[in-house]
Amino acid sequence: MFHAHSALRRGLPWLALVLTALFVTFLADAVEAKTSTPQKAKYVFLFIGDGMGIPQRTAAEQFKGATLAMDTLPAQGITTTYAANRFITGSAAAATALSSGQKTNINYIGMTPKLKPVKTIAEIAKEKGMKVGIVSSVSIDHATPAAFYAHVPHRSQYYDIDVALAESGFDYFGGGGLKDPTNKKGKSKNFKGDARELIKKNGYKVVTDKAEFLALSPEDSGKVFAHNKALPDGKALPYAIDRTDKDISLAEFTAKGIELLDNPNGFFMMVEGGKIDWACHANDAKSAIDDTVAFDEAIQQALAFYRKHPAETLIVVTGDHECGGLTLGFAGTKYQSYFQTLDSQDVSFQRFTDEPVKLFKETCQKEGGCAFEHIKPAITHFFGLKFEGDPKKDTLVLEPFQVKMLQEAFQRTMSGETVKSQDSETVLLYGEYDPLTVTITHILNQKAGLGWTSYQHTGVPVSTSAIGVGSVLFNGYYDNTDVAKKIMSTLGVAPTVHYASN
Amino acid sequence: MFHAHSALRRGLPWLALVLTALFVTFLADAVEAKTSTPQKAKYVFLFIGDGMGIPQRTAAEQFKGATLAMDTLPAQGITTTYAANRFITGSAAAATALSSGQKTNINYIGMTPKLKPVKTIAEIAKEKGMKVGIVSSVSIDHATPAAFYAHVPHRSQYYDIDVALAESGFDYFGGGGLKDPTNKKGKSKNFKGDARELIKKNGYKVVTDKAEFLALSPEDSGKVFAHNKALPDGKALPYAIDRTDKDISLAEFTAKGIELLDNPNGFFMMVEGGKIDWACHANDAKSAIDDTVAFDEAIQQALAFYRKHPAETLIVVTGDHECGGLTLGFAGTKYQSYFQTLDSQDVSFQRFTDEPVKLFKETCQKEGGCAFEHIKPAITHFFGLKFEGDPKKDTLVLEPFQVKMLQEAFQRTMSGETVKSQDSETVLLYGEYDPLTVTITHILNQKAGLGWTSYQHTGVPVSTSAIGVGSVLFNGYYDNTDVAKKIMSTLGVAPTVHYASN
Repeated sequence: MFHAHSALRRGLPWLALVLTALFVTFLADAVEAKTSTPQKAKYVFLFIGDGMGIPQRTAAEQFKGATLAMDTLPAQGITTTYAANRFITGSAAAATALSSGQKTNINYIGMTPKLKPVKTIAEIAKEKGMKVGIVSSVSIDHATPAAFYAHVPHRSQYYDIDVALAESGFDYFGGGGLKDPTNKKGKSKNFKGDARELIKKNGYKVVTDKAEFLALSPEDSGKVFAHNKALPDGKALPYAIDRTDKDISLAEFTAKGIELLDNPNGFFMMVEGGKIDWACHANDAKSAIDDTVAFDEAIQQALAFYRKHPAETLIVVTGDHECGGLTLGFAGTKYQSYFQTLDSQDVSFQRFTDEPVKLFKETCQKEGGCAFEHIKPAITHFFGLKFEGDPKKDTLVLEPFQVKMLQEAFQRTMSGETVKSQDSETVLLYGEYDPLTVTITHILNQKAGLGWTSYQHTGVPVSTSAIGVGSVLFNGYYDNTDVAKKIMSTLGVAPTVHYASN
Repeated sequence: MFHAHSALRRGLPWLALVLTALFVTFLADAVEAKTSTPQKAKYVFLFIGDGMGIPQRTAAEQFKGATLAMDTLPAQGITTTYAANRFITGSAAAATALSSGQKTNINYIGMTPKLKPVKTIAEIAKEKGMKVGIVSSVSIDHATPAAFYAHVPHRSQYYDIDVALAESGFDYFGGGGLKDPTNKKGKSKNFKGDARELIKKNGYKVVTDKAEFLALSPEDSGKVFAHNKALPDGKALPYAIDRTDKDISLAEFTAKGIELLDNPNGFFMMVEGGKIDWACHANDAKSAIDDTVAFDEAIQQALAFYRKHPAETLIVVTGDHECGGLTLGFAGTKYQSYFQTLDSQDVSFQRFTDEPVKLFKETCQKEGGCAFEHIKPAITHFFGLKFEGDPKKDTLVLEPFQVKMLQEAFQRTMSGETVKSQDSETVLLYGEYDPLTVTITHILNQKAGLGWTSYQHTGVPVSTSAIGVGSVLFNGYYDNTDVAKKIMSTLGVAPTVHYASN
């Protein structure tokens, strides 16, 4: 059901413990002295789990039955996330804090609350002659990656962000695609042509084929812009739970980044696990857990590099905010937890809504209506929830009130009512998601002993972990702006407002 | 709406920051070197916030509009809380972990899973000639304080625990009373007489009068057993929200403890904020916040002492587990938070249930029934929730579906249905609390932007904070058993199983 963190230590005979403990403080000194050696970091990794709070990390760990790599890092801190103008932050303000040390307003990308552009860690690294890589599992112009290379008043200015990417001079972009390379949404007043062409024109090799991607080598000169061929929703990689062998994983984008960026002047690489957030918005714990594990696998790539260059590498892992108000306890299951129950889900909420539910609705419309009975097999097939049996003997068997919840959600799904017509009470039940799908994940999550309180972010602090050069700085309780400042200090620079034209 | 943690730092001109940051790593080294000096701690404080997870701390901070003292301590860590036989722990197993470094089963007090007694930090301190004090805002024989002086297979063996207290030889007990000093519940097989008499016989001065308590002086020789005169529920202090000037506060019990225990051989004091947990079980955020602030005021007493003896004092603050699945975001308020809304509540859920609701029920039974209309003024008076007005203009105005929730809860409260008859769906709504009261706090909390997922504890890790001798050890990510081991290392000893007869 759960595992111990200090199994090794607990396995030692107590006599050894008595002897060892007499020197604990002395040993701690030695360790501290070693980790806080005032060296500069040559290779810097910043991993940002979007929507990844402490509950998300612990849930993934309990489901997996093993400690995540990020939780084994020697330095661990607690990080506040608020924006300049709101207690519950958004990804743009949070990413600006993490990229530049600047507290800013909701939706601002790389700018102060007074709309002055701020210099980011990535830009500083580039100026210092280091190579720079940006990786994300969502679109590469989404708020989090954008805050490292763009400076715009609103995160929705995707075309401007795409142009900023093309003009960044950064060496490697990997993961998702571009959301508005042709200014189709018309949010930019400064059209410079198709951003995809600008990217090529500025010397980027654009790669989307997996075999070609995996064959990329440091011997190939020039910059790389690589994205997964299949971008199922919002130009993002598929959820880890839906990934096939044809997809490039976040870990593969990270590993290739390390290979391409490694050079005598060092590098800075930001890697975002972006779909943890999206899954949490939809209150889909299993998809969030699988994306957290996929994010941890990307971190393991950096750890493998760290082990080769321990005296020159810094790895920092943080979250930009918690999302969904996830907690590891539910009124219905009281003190019990059944994390393994989630194993019966093998599709993301998104794919379930986009494929089976959509097909079902289309078929039913043609045939003039369908009964709830007809969708039951799909619910059992994709999520393991059972309509027959004894709920006391089998956690997956639905209780009568849960069947009623599903029936009501089904009616609402089939009626196709728009979100805007929902009253306050309905918003609590379904947020802005497909009513049937979100009700299924709610029930499955509750059966596992997990609860959600929101479809948005929350203001609960997140945790930050670090290993390597200067990692001791990341112990303690500090703000998200401090994360950037601490990283900058390991590069020997401080955050400054810069008045660049971009 | 919210405050910044690093206001001071942000206030500095950026030029100063540039210069400062160049030496950040060097300075960090110096600080680390200083705080990790391998000195032994002479004065050790362990503060345990029962049910106090990270969300509880942040909620209190946001409501108060200022950083809590505990969050200013230089060392901050993340602590896992699981029990030996369950992911979601209970106060007995958690307190045993914190008191002895021993992972154990649910309900066990000071014993291994194989029922061997384990030596506690308090007992070790006593053996070393230090004085020992135990303070709690709940009954002094409750699981958390008991785990420092008793060794019993079940936390409900209150008589045995009371006898262990009498025989502990500890110097100071302060806070709540005894739950079963005469073995009325018959849970003990070894009756030794009224535990209150044993306490006196063993040299304790018993004090319950506030003036007499405040006049206690180190010049009075002998041990002290002090409890508040008014013990409104379960022999506990009143909730901080209900406290009057006649009550002795947790801070006063702590301050007096410091005064009485201070001696050339040093002391160990454990202080529990026990009613944070009880308020969270009932999903009453305002009562939890007020008790968290009261707990922080007790911590400030220790900090005042620390400032006089910085080189010899260690203060550790932790939680035994999160309770209620509190998060700082709610589906209905989306990205907004309205912490100040809670200010309109000025009674604990417990007192509201025990006084207005009870009186109302009695009156209505006499008169053959009451309408919901009759209790509306009490809801508005004690919680600020309004039945008239525009919910869009005034956060406190109830929406129609919320009025319906209150009406349904009112019917259930008046019908006096017992908890045992509730079905699974009803348990989700009310837990085992008075339906009307818990619905009121749910709605008020949701209006503030707070959500709950459970009436029990959760498995989300808590945070641990420390200042003083050896405090650097409390940075990082570690288990609750490690908290005890780290404290023991600052006392120069290691945890051992001891086979005492108690």
